Amino acid sequence: MRPSGRAPDEMRAISIETGFTKHAEGSCLIGFGDTKVLVTASIEERLPPWLKGKGEGWVTAEYSMLPRATHTRGQREAAKGKQSGRTQEIQRLIGRSLRAVVDLKKLGERQITLDCDVIQADGGTRTASISGAWVALRLAVNGLMAKGLIKEDPITAKVAAISCGIHQGTPVLDLDYIEDSNADADANFVLIEGGNIAEAQATAEGAPYDEEALLRLLRLARMGCNDIFAAQERAVS
Amino acid sequence: MRPSGRAPDEMRAISIETGFTKHAEGSCLIGFGDTKVLVTASIEERLPPWLKGKGEGWVTAEYSMLPRATHTRGQREAAKGKQSGRTQEIQRLIGRSLRAVVDLKKLGERQITLDCDVIQADGGTRTASISGAWVALRLAVNGLMAKGLIKEDPITAKVAAISCGIHQGTPVLDLDYIEDSNADADANFVLIEGGNIAEAQATAEGAPYDEEALLRLLRLARMGCNDIFAAQERAVS
Amino acid sequence: MRPSGRAPDEMRAISIETGFTKHAEGSCLIGFGDTKVLVTASIEERLPPWLKGKGEGWVTAEYSMLPRATHTRGQREAAKGKQSGRTQEIQRLIGRSLRAVVDLKKLGERQITLDCDVIQADGGTRTASISGAWVALRLAVNGLMAKGLIKEDPITAKVAAISCGIHQGTPVLDLDYIEDSNADADANFVLIEGGNIAEAQATAEGAPYDEEALLRLLRLARMGCNDIFAAQERAVS
Amino acid sequence: MRPSGRAPDEMRAISIETGFTKHAEGSCLIGFGDTKVLVTASIEERLPPWLKGKGEGWVTAEYSMLPRATHTRGQREAAKGKQSGRTQEIQRLIGRSLRAVVDLKKLGERQITLDCDVIQADGGTRTASISGAWVALRLAVNGLMAKGLIKEDPITAKVAAISCGIHQGTPVLDLDYIEDSNADADANFVLIEGGNIAEAQATAEGAPYDEEALLRLLRLARMGCNDIFAAQERAVS
Amino acid sequence: MRPSGRAPDEMRAISIETGFTKHAEGSCLIGFGDTKVLVTASIEERLPPWLKGKGEGWVTAEYSMLPRATHTRGQREAAKGKQSGRTQEIQRLIGRSLRAVVDLKKLGERQITLDCDVIQADGGTRTASISGAWVALRLAVNGLMAKGLIKEDPITAKVAAISCGIHQGTPVLDLDYIEDSNADADANFVLIEGGNIAEAQATAEGAPYDEEALLRLLRLARMGCNDIFAAQERAVS
Amino acid sequence: MRPSGRAPDEMRAISIETGFTKHAEGSCLIGFGDTKVLVTASIEERLPPWLKGKGEGWVTAEYSMLPRATHTRGQREAAKGKQSGRTQEIQRLIGRSLRAVVDLKKLGERQITLDCDVIQADGGTRTASISGAWVALRLAVNGLMAKGLIKEDPITAKVAAISCGIHQGTPVLDLDYIEDSNADADANFVLIEGGNIAEAQATAEGAPYDEEALLRLLRLARMGCNDIFAAQERAVS
Repeated sequence: MRPSGRAPDEMRAISIETGFTKHAEGSCLIGFGDTKVLVTASIEERLPPWLKGKGEGWVTAEYSMLPRATHTRGQREAAKGKQSGRTQEIQRLIGRSLRAVVDLKKLGERQITLDCDVIQADGGTRTASISGAWVALRLAVNGLMAKGLIKEDPITAKVAAISCGIHQGTPVLDLDYIEDSNADADANFVLIEGGNIAEAQATAEGAPYDEEALLRLLRLARMGCNDIFAAQERAVS
Repeated sequence: MRPSGRAPDEMRAISIETGFTKHAEGSCLIGFGDTKVLVTASIEERLPPWLKGKGEGWVTAEYSMLPRATHTRGQREAAKGKQSGRTQEIQRLIGRSLRAVVDLKKLGERQITLDCDVIQADGGTRTASISGAWVALRLAVNGLMAKGLIKEDPITAKVAAISCGIHQGTPVLDLDYIEDSNADADANFVLIEGGNIAEAQATAEGAPYDEEALLRLLRLARMGCNDIFAAQERAVS
Repeated sequence: MRPSGRAPDEMRAISIETGFTKHAEGSCLIGFGDTKVLVTASIEERLPPWLKGKGEGWVTAEYSMLPRATHTRGQREAAKGKQSGRTQEIQRLIGRSLRAVVDLKKLGERQITLDCDVIQADGGTRTASISGAWVALRLAVNGLMAKGLIKEDPITAKVAAISCGIHQGTPVLDLDYIEDSNADADANFVLIEGGNIAEAQATAEGAPYDEEALLRLLRLARMGCNDIFAAQERAVS
Repeated sequence: MRPSGRAPDEMRAISIETGFTKHAEGSCLIGFGDTKVLVTASIEERLPPWLKGKGEGWVTAEYSMLPRATHTRGQREAAKGKQSGRTQEIQRLIGRSLRAVVDLKKLGERQITLDCDVIQADGGTRTASISGAWVALRLAVNGLMAKGLIKEDPITAKVAAISCGIHQGTPVLDLDYIEDSNADADANFVLIEGGNIAEAQATAEGAPYDEEALLRLLRLARMGCNDIFAAQERAVS
Repeated sequence: MRPSGRAPDEMRAISIETGFTKHAEGSCLIGFGDTKVLVTASIEERLPPWLKGKGEGWVTAEYSMLPRATHTRGQREAAKGKQSGRTQEIQRLIGRSLRAVVDLKKLGERQITLDCDVIQADGGTRTASISGAWVALRLAVNGLMAKGLIKEDPITAKVAAISCGIHQGTPVLDLDYIEDSNADADANFVLIEGGNIAEAQATAEGAPYDEEALLRLLRLARMGCNDIFAAQERAVS
Repeated sequence: MRPSGRAPDEMRAISIETGFTKHAEGSCLIGFGDTKVLVTASIEERLPPWLKGKGEGWVTAEYSMLPRATHTRGQREAAKGKQSGRTQEIQRLIGRSLRAVVDLKKLGERQITLDCDVIQADGGTRTASISGAWVALRLAVNGLMAKGLIKEDPITAKVAAISCGIHQGTPVLDLDYIEDSNADADANFVLIEGGNIAEAQATAEGAPYDEEALLRLLRLARMGCNDIFAAQERAVS
């Protein structure tokens, strides 16, 4: 029995509210249950120095938790003067995941930054960030296409991400904070619509796991991502 | 004529949504028109080192803009590795303003941190932060009193803040971003319910101003803060 | 009775020694009683990146306390690796105050930096800094004009600043450290010669204050600044 | 055909030279072909603050590349003033991998730090670091047991890591730098002796991959780790 | 012929004005010609952590140049966020030089910090700092002895420092900025009254020098330090 | 009697293994007894901004200790976020010493960086670094000359460095860690082949020393450097 009473393959409610802020070229507030992440996509007509003059663009991400997104207050990274290893690891993952579905040549010489700010955390903030970032990116690119600034759609597919793990011996989908804190293994899958894998990360927290478990987690992730793809589709239609 | 069509002494709509996040001891999303600030109050049973053992508590604040709260994306302070002078100036002001209405002895040996994170900016983020911080603080202190951890109410009054300025020769109340960018003078008043002043800051941006102008701005601020006091009252009832 | 025995509207002795250092284009050691600030004006024929090519110049300021300017030694900011919020707030105020009396177009494409280093502190270091910075700036601009590098005087008026506050119920002028530590309210006024206001900042430290008190503090500040304007005039003649 | 002429399932030569430095409680220079990493294990009788008094120990890791370990010189992180996201991600992975085979209660209240300094890089520095760190840790723990400071062996198994990837359509084992730069997918597996998985990370660099590919990479990794386990056994015997 | 017209073994005028600031336990403004350094000695009844409980004290130093102490403005180290290598090297030298004449046991469990802030620079700022630091230290220790806090004098001798160098083939004493910029070799000697050496540092800037030159520079330094010892004596009497 | 049993004028064994890493343009692992330093020379066809367009090159150095090069683990400077004063002082000395034997005009508009990473420390790490850096530099320059990128040899002579000191009253050559920790005086000499001095630094740690002692230390250093010059010659032949 999961603490939340959910079935092992049951996702939390997915909510996506687009246009949450008015200045960004694309934005949404995505919720996986009580996890809420505000994602904005910002288009800038400039590139990082190492990409200049190559005829292609860049997609990158930044991630942050508001200090009181969590049960107890965490120190603000701007006040500490540096981003934690965890923050950097997550924002690198988000950027890589989105770039897996963007043709940077078709994007042209511009940069899109996806800012993922966690308003409230209850497990799965990085996977909600990736899933919401796709929506914000889609909206921002739609705007570029509507203005005629881009001719061919640079987005090749949807991308979504979900966590799963082994909790008290059972593979379960979409861990909330309580499950995440006690899982024997904890995995994050970033999947491309159609079934391929952009990124798989599975970590033994308690006991190591075997190949069979890895496959079962991957199959749960497929189920979860299908729900997210549907929610993304509704959000951007 | 103001760009927004408002009368010189007309505030933007004030909205206060309490309980916006579930973990914080007090929280609200405060809006002054399109300016939206998420404020959380976090209670910690520990004190800064210089206050230990003095039998009193502390109230402090931190302030941040999400990178795309503004028209164009600003660099994330956590990524730059330091808080700007503007950020530090604002968070010092917020903390000072709240302490003006708290009896730190009655609060007891605990610290309350008010995190003010600007979700969307359209002028007046610091005054919305102060006004919302009072609501979050009130809710957090109510919780302490309900649990019997505090016997006497340490909050002595309401505090609210509003900007006003001289725009094209006319003193106006509650500047939005367009007005703020072109004001001849720009003032922020932090007022205590009942009429006294906790803080007055008035800066000539274009031409210097005279005593008469300072008084007219103060009177506009009184009108604005009365509206905010009423909204605060509704929010915490 | 004030701790120093001064009358409520009595300034401390103002001293201004110009040419205190030989390398700077303008410099002075300004004293308000035991508060001593060394101010230098440095002219550089370069601009911050955001001002390039706009046909105008810039005036900015930096502020620092020597570690043992105060009763007990403070940690050196260069050793800590960052400037405190207080330092940044003060140096922003100094720069803004001086720019209130400079026509940046007439200054031409160059930057003048006013370095205010507090040698000895006894209250009022930011106001002494502003008042001394005007002298150093005046001397540096005189040099530019004497060399024919500037044709029209870019300085439009004198600017000076003074603190005042409510001490044991009485509004008093030019707070020293002992008064400043115990004041109910603490204000800094930056005034333009002729009577207009460039900046007013009044903070309740103990009890909040009313409009009447604000006006009385402003009137004291006018008296004080008139003395400073006279001392500035003597210094640069 | 691989650039090195190796067969798809062929590892590079593994070399492990123990006792490479004389001060560390355990050390080795591990080589996977031209990749050379110096690993030291340092025992300290103190703990991070959050672990004090819990009756257990800690194992952690730090990772760095010497500036000229690579084809072109990289900037020294100590000179830049911060560790890159990549460095932090790798050192978190190393620490987590080693903790997967250590019973922290049996280790007792002490910390072992594994410093992994890359002397020369040719792909696979993080997996060589993990594999070498086990050797250094084993030697350090042997020393504690020989001195009677630990009674029961806290190390529960061997742990090793290897990279594999899809290079020009073919799954290959133990990528060198040239392959790594051109791989379609790039995976790192951390395996426990006996066959279980401590960590799996597989990233699509070019095209996304499917479940079949993930399994083939995992099987290559099993082959590679078996070679490493044998080399570790020889090194510590 | 030296640019200043001085004879090869001629010092610049030495001036020492004690009591330059009122808060420090000891202070002086020392001048070697146009080089002016403000030195303060601050006594604190606390020690660095590694010295606690050993029954002895500590003497340390910090050094800084005001931004416009030099011909062109240098960036403020507090604004850059770190002290330069040159600054750290100099402040380590000052601290070491003073500790050479202090019996730390007799000083007792307290720390004296010598802050050397260069007001105006014209060559020789580190040697003026050391020479002035002895005066400030002497005054501070006198105060401790007068209050009965120290029984036996912990200062064992005078210490002074002077630069010398080879300028256009001639060994010269007390280099000013112009000479320093063009010297073939540049040396700093820290000497103990009586003739012994606390520190010798001699660097070839242009051509390397020989043993004979090193000895001639040392003999010049002896002459110079004798003048400084006399000036120190006058200052503290 | 020295702790190691060496005669007062006896060096530890000098070992120089060239080509220790394959990517650098020049490299060696230099050993002075148990002190081992890996030095690499990296050629870059770019210059620091202040040297651009002057028709000459630059030689600079960076120095670091691996955290467990020493008896007890030191904190990694990249993790602390800054280089210590000691590190900066040493790397400035290394760069200066090498520039003493390089004609920067003949080097042409390129920079050579000498990275000195201490693998194992037992006293004398800075002098081993300088001595090894010359070898790495010589090899890198040989490569430039072999490719015809430089026509005239920019290296004018060999440079080497050695420590010596006064240990229990006796001047001794090439201090190891135990001697270094207890020396009364500690000197480092950087000598040019042929006998001239590039840098002399002699510090009294316990009792100050006299001119006679300085000369005896210099003569020991001459003997030691002659051995190093011979080892350098063998290494690069």
